[in-house]
Amino acid sequence: MLEYSDCQKLIEENLIQLYYDEEPNQLYSPIRYILRLGGKRLRPCFTLLAHNLFSENIKDALYPALGIEVFHNFTLLHDDIMDNASMRRKQETVHKKWNENTAILSGDAMMIIAYDLISKSRSEIFPDVFKIFNKTALEVCEGQQYDMNFEKQNSVKVNEYLKMIRLKTAVLFGASLAIGGITALSGSENIENLYQLGINVGSGFQLQDDYLDVFASSADFGKKIGGDIIANKKTYLLIMALNSNNKNAVKELKGWIEKKGFDPEEKVQAVKRIYQNLGIDEATRILASEYIEKGLIYLSQISADKERKNALQNLILQITKREN
Amino acid sequence: MLEYSDCQKLIEENLIQLYYDEEPNQLYSPIRYILRLGGKRLRPCFTLLAHNLFSENIKDALYPALGIEVFHNFTLLHDDIMDNASMRRKQETVHKKWNENTAILSGDAMMIIAYDLISKSRSEIFPDVFKIFNKTALEVCEGQQYDMNFEKQNSVKVNEYLKMIRLKTAVLFGASLAIGGITALSGSENIENLYQLGINVGSGFQLQDDYLDVFASSADFGKKIGGDIIANKKTYLLIMALNSNNKNAVKELKGWIEKKGFDPEEKVQAVKRIYQNLGIDEATRILASEYIEKGLIYLSQISADKERKNALQNLILQITKREN
Repeated sequence: MLEYSDCQKLIEENLIQLYYDEEPNQLYSPIRYILRLGGKRLRPCFTLLAHNLFSENIKDALYPALGIEVFHNFTLLHDDIMDNASMRRKQETVHKKWNENTAILSGDAMMIIAYDLISKSRSEIFPDVFKIFNKTALEVCEGQQYDMNFEKQNSVKVNEYLKMIRLKTAVLFGASLAIGGITALSGSENIENLYQLGINVGSGFQLQDDYLDVFASSADFGKKIGGDIIANKKTYLLIMALNSNNKNAVKELKGWIEKKGFDPEEKVQAVKRIYQNLGIDEATRILASEYIEKGLIYLSQISADKERKNALQNLILQITKREN
Repeated sequence: MLEYSDCQKLIEENLIQLYYDEEPNQLYSPIRYILRLGGKRLRPCFTLLAHNLFSENIKDALYPALGIEVFHNFTLLHDDIMDNASMRRKQETVHKKWNENTAILSGDAMMIIAYDLISKSRSEIFPDVFKIFNKTALEVCEGQQYDMNFEKQNSVKVNEYLKMIRLKTAVLFGASLAIGGITALSGSENIENLYQLGINVGSGFQLQDDYLDVFASSADFGKKIGGDIIANKKTYLLIMALNSNNKNAVKELKGWIEKKGFDPEEKVQAVKRIYQNLGIDEATRILASEYIEKGLIYLSQISADKERKNALQNLILQITKREN
């Protein structure tokens, strides 16, 4: 039985061997670069651990898992251009290190490479893997578009936000797990439970991420605290606050959003207090927990031995309980 | 038996029905826009006409043909960003009409839609169609990268150029035709002949395009004459001239390339004369013809009735004899 760390090792070893010597170098070296920036490798490990619930023959899940990781990194590469982000995992982003054209084209090539890896699934399961992968890939683009739309929208409804994170984040969690169920030939019921597990954990994970951006201790959180507040990012917390009935709080919040030339620390503390006064910190934690709990119910319904589920369950608890 | 115009009609009718009502509109409306700008629909018609060499059941080739056209338009969309082009088919390009982020993301979605259409091939042929499509898609990215590299390279060899146009243009011609052979279950020998037909016609077509940019009468040529000369684009003609042994001609040419603030018409006429003096106009025409002739030999080797080949042969002659 595999642990998360075994899966990470497998993914790292195999990612490093992809497309090492290919020409033109200007196309392939940014791909090698981003694939070697590291990261948690969550999604491909979901695939391997889901497969391992039913099968020891892990090789059958390896290529689809790699395809998912390459696809995920393609989305990061293109998202970084769109967000004009300078840093990714403490290194320069591809469009900063090279240029925008290189980042566009290398990203395009990564998507094709992702499909190539997906197609290395065993032939009898390839159509099923392809179908869910393709549907998910388009949904991820839709999620990114909604996220970009929100930046320009004055008002975003809570359920619009929940739909956005479902598309942008949760469906790829769902697909990663479901594909492991497909490669292990686990049957449609288990595959559906795996998908729902991923959808719920993915939404919970994103809400947790929104929460931790404000309320984590910076030691536990990889990023700088309050980055979303400073950037006026439409997170679950901000949307909840803007939709609040407390007119004074909304007015104060809008003041901070529109304010130019503020002290960052002062803004973060002020907005944090508004969230706390409105009870949004608790509400976010509770909603995140509900999603994760719901996900774990789907996990419990999967027909595999309980001890085989431990690695997957531990990973989910690990990634969704990062606060101190 | 289908003519080219029948195929165009089929493609137009079916393209227009793709993804009409999808949300978010900001993602899908640029896709509808670029797919409705028109164009010759050469590549999907190649697929349909190749299929029709062997089979009347044209529906079997329709979805892969549409996938190829969507993929081709995806490459145009992203190439227009990279080239900072303002106009495409006499209309604004997507990144000008909307913005760059929209163009990147809508392009990404188009590639996924292309794969989705490809996957609607009949299940027994899907793996073969997928394989050649995927290989070709990556090669097209490589070709675009080489083309971008050339802009920054002082010297480009003739065979580097020929490799670039093979990747950027010819392989998709080859794949379009080969996929028609695959959907018609025409057997590996016919499929290979179709692929080689496309590779050769594609290279001839691109060389012809380079030639016509300088030497067409503007009435026959859709674009403005001399655009490549004004932009110092590394075409076959420019590369041949820069690699010439005639030092005076090379010196004069480099003078024009480096010159700022020139009269466009004067530059076009001067560079045109250099090409003519070096015999590059003739050399380009001859090489283009050789490719096309070679392509037609592959067509002759395909095991289909001669009269069934007429539509395809006429189309090839039509698109490669556009000069007056």
